[in-house]
Amino acid sequence: MSVFEVDSAFEAGSVAVADWPLCHVRLQNDGRFPWLILIPRAAGAVEFEDLSADDRARLMEEVVAAGRVDRALGVLMGRPVDKLNTAALGNVTAQLHVHVVGRRRDDPLWPDPVWGRPGAAPHQLETLNRLIETVKRSPV
Amino acid sequence: MSVFEVDSAFEAGSVAVADWPLCHVRLQNDGRFPWLILIPRAAGAVEFEDLSADDRARLMEEVVAAGRVDRALGVLMGRPVDKLNTAALGNVTAQLHVHVVGRRRDDPLWPDPVWGRPGAAPHQLETLNRLIETVKRSPV
Repeated sequence: MSVFEVDSAFEAGSVAVADWPLCHVRLQNDGRFPWLILIPRAAGAVEFEDLSADDRARLMEEVVAAGRVDRALGVLMGRPVDKLNTAALGNVTAQLHVHVVGRRRDDPLWPDPVWGRPGAAPHQLETLNRLIETVKRSPV
Repeated sequence: MSVFEVDSAFEAGSVAVADWPLCHVRLQNDGRFPWLILIPRAAGAVEFEDLSADDRARLMEEVVAAGRVDRALGVLMGRPVDKLNTAALGNVTAQLHVHVVGRRRDDPLWPDPVWGRPGAAPHQLETLNRLIETVKRSPV
C-alpha cells in the first residue's frame, strides 16, 4: 500500500470525526465509553516501529490529547472518566491504530479491557452528534 | 508518593530484569507469550499526562525497544512473534506501566487481548533464566 487509506473495517463501529496533524481520528460508537481511535496517516504502517521517531513522539502527544477529549466526552455523557486505557493491538485489523478509552470503576467491563468483549450499544443520535462536535472543537 | 517505588503488586506475576534510561523493565512470567512491562521511574505517575513530553517520547522509544526484545524472546521460545500488542491500562494496578506483548495467530487467546484472562503458566526455570539474560543483554 503506497497511499494512506483508512481500512474499511473501522467503518462498522466508528465514525470519522477529525484529522489531527498525524492521525485520522474516529469516535467509536459505543454508548458505554468515551472512546477515540487514532490512525496515523502513514501508508502501510502496522507497528510503532513503522513510524519515524518524530512521528512516534507526535503520536504520543496525540494520545495525550485524545485522553483529554475522552475526559470531556465523559462529562457530556454524565459519566466522568476515572482511568484512561490506551492500546495498540491490531490483531483483528492490522492497520496501525491506537485506542484511547475512558473507563469508570462502575462501567460494565471494569476492570477488564474493552476489546473482544460483547455488549456495545450505539450512542443515541443526539448524543453522538454532540460528542462529534466536541471532538471537532477540541484543541490537539 | 514522592520517591519512585515499584508497586509490590507487580511481584506476583513478573520479575525485575533491567533498568533502561526511563523505565524499570520487568518480564511477565507467562510461558504463553514474550511479555515485558515498562514502568517509568516517575514517582506518582498514573497516566501519560503525568510525564513530561520528553519522557513520553523516551517512553515511546523504549516501547519500540521492548517490541524488538519480545521478537528475540519469541524466537528463543520457539514461537516467533506475529504481532505486538501494547497497552497502558492500570485498572488493577494504577501505577503507570506499559505492557508490550508478542502475539501469534496460533496463541491460546488470539485475537483477544491477554489481560484479565486466565491461563497463565510460568516459564520453566531454565527458559526463564535464558529470557532474563537476553533482556539484560539487549540494547535499548
